[in-house]
Amino acid sequence: MAVTLKDVATLAGVSVKTVSNVVNGYAFVKPENRRRVEEALAATGYRPNVGARNLRRGRTGFLALMVPELSIPYFGEMAGLVITAAQRRGWSVLIEQTQGTRDRERATVDSLGPHLVDGALVHPEALEADDFPDAEGKIPLVLLGEHAVDVALDRVAIDNVRAAHVAVSHLVSLGRRRIAAIGANPKRGTSSLRLAGYRAALADAGLPSADSLVEPVAKYHRAEGAAAMKRLLAQEEPPDAVFCFNDLLAVGALRSAAEHGLRVPGDVAIVGFDNTEESAFSLPALTTISPDKAAIAEAAIDLIHRRLAGTESAAPRSVQPPFSLEVRESTVVS
Amino acid sequence: MAVTLKDVATLAGVSVKTVSNVVNGYAFVKPENRRRVEEALAATGYRPNVGARNLRRGRTGFLALMVPELSIPYFGEMAGLVITAAQRRGWSVLIEQTQGTRDRERATVDSLGPHLVDGALVHPEALEADDFPDAEGKIPLVLLGEHAVDVALDRVAIDNVRAAHVAVSHLVSLGRRRIAAIGANPKRGTSSLRLAGYRAALADAGLPSADSLVEPVAKYHRAEGAAAMKRLLAQEEPPDAVFCFNDLLAVGALRSAAEHGLRVPGDVAIVGFDNTEESAFSLPALTTISPDKAAIAEAAIDLIHRRLAGTESAAPRSVQPPFSLEVRESTVVS
Repeated sequence: MAVTLKDVATLAGVSVKTVSNVVNGYAFVKPENRRRVEEALAATGYRPNVGARNLRRGRTGFLALMVPELSIPYFGEMAGLVITAAQRRGWSVLIEQTQGTRDRERATVDSLGPHLVDGALVHPEALEADDFPDAEGKIPLVLLGEHAVDVALDRVAIDNVRAAHVAVSHLVSLGRRRIAAIGANPKRGTSSLRLAGYRAALADAGLPSADSLVEPVAKYHRAEGAAAMKRLLAQEEPPDAVFCFNDLLAVGALRSAAEHGLRVPGDVAIVGFDNTEESAFSLPALTTISPDKAAIAEAAIDLIHRRLAGTESAAPRSVQPPFSLEVRESTVVS
Repeated sequence: MAVTLKDVATLAGVSVKTVSNVVNGYAFVKPENRRRVEEALAATGYRPNVGARNLRRGRTGFLALMVPELSIPYFGEMAGLVITAAQRRGWSVLIEQTQGTRDRERATVDSLGPHLVDGALVHPEALEADDFPDAEGKIPLVLLGEHAVDVALDRVAIDNVRAAHVAVSHLVSLGRRRIAAIGANPKRGTSSLRLAGYRAALADAGLPSADSLVEPVAKYHRAEGAAAMKRLLAQEEPPDAVFCFNDLLAVGALRSAAEHGLRVPGDVAIVGFDNTEESAFSLPALTTISPDKAAIAEAAIDLIHRRLAGTESAAPRSVQPPFSLEVRESTVVS
């Protein structure tokens, strides 16, 4: 019952050779044909005869995806998209969870070799540059998410500074003047970038950026967002808007605002980050930064594919997928 | 930097031999020692030298986990727990997504063999009994979730009929009389069990179970819950309580109730199922059935482990982990 190359070719209306070229990652396929083949691959759920092909090429047929926690919706959604994108290339995906600790992240990165996987997508939170193994004889590694780590690897991440700037400028444009931030954490690279974007947007608007308005959190979980919001609301002069560094923190902030008897956005506007599915259904629905998660997954899988096929130049590539601001009820009354 | 058996033994205060016995799944370890070793394994993030051990045993070091969609929080949370439980036994976990379609589920189950993985945890939604490959020469397979499929495999699932009965009886005990259900779907085994529990609880309370109060859905997503709730609220005599077959449907129902200007639970009480992290933070927080997800993951990994170690009898085992009702704001005003 397995889907064959021929089935895919028939559905796409192209030759078997063209399907094979796409599946094997060769560069010279007309964009229109590539698109049709990729749609047909998705529709049929085609899986290459991995065993035979991998033996031939000395490959394992596996990719690894390293994330902090799958129970965090952003990572659950990203993992789903990575698995889908990888499957179209004939890869199965191993998932490793690190809880975002440097020791676990280092142990995971150390364990990845060509005996285990053909490549890896790693989403580190605490790794430092010298934690990465020597590239010599190693598998292609793609970093997901922007980080301070200065290491010569392929990367796929949206522009976090700019995204944070867009989120905060949206609040400024609505007339908010005491804009707080929840999510500062010196150990997380992404946090410092979002904080920089927040501060830059305030500076550009001529607004103060008091340290008392920046709430640190240890984890990007709902409970931490709720606790941070409580602290902000206990201040003598509470904020009239809050930029949260992810949707979970924002969901926690929504709850604390409600428990405090405040209207959102009337009394305090709240913006999240990630556009997780949950954010569209919270009460009120969250305005949030929406990274193009499918584009992130596709770009990362594509990079590994090209590295293995040798169709990518030697220098590390940095891919910046687009993002947008989803404006919803937590900042604008509909 | 890798953690050794010796490190684990030192931390647990037991001999290296005892740690080895636990890691290798031998039965005769004192419960107290087993507990200490398992805590030390978790704390250190110990990973057996999988390569060497697997070669010796003819194993791959991989398990497969088949789920419909990782972006559904229940599956994201379950996958996280399965990966953690598997890692303690030295397994890495491959995740396959099927979107819950029978074709994709069958293709996945067909592809699982001893060349690929040592065992598999499968969460089917549409598979029928004759879709399962002959057990002969195959790997240990554990079914997650209760299903109508009559196939001789190990299973791990809570008692869905009883859980639904508990949820609906809770609504009855609060004086609700027109209790609707959202989530009927004849293609999903779990749905028919929850529907049976719902009907039984109504019958036990002497309440009517009109067909008009049972809302079918194609998928267990938030948007479907919102749409189903809208249909219920448009009825001449709308319900005063709704039992939703998962938390996502309930989150959608909360939104439609709010858009309809109704108070929850004042005008309509809502109960979910799964106790996903989201349910504790929604406004209002959801009363929900809480399956012991960690126990489900542990039991499934343990079954595969014992099958491979030959310490389990030949007959298929059925393990029923516990569940509880988490009573929150969506049914009882705090």
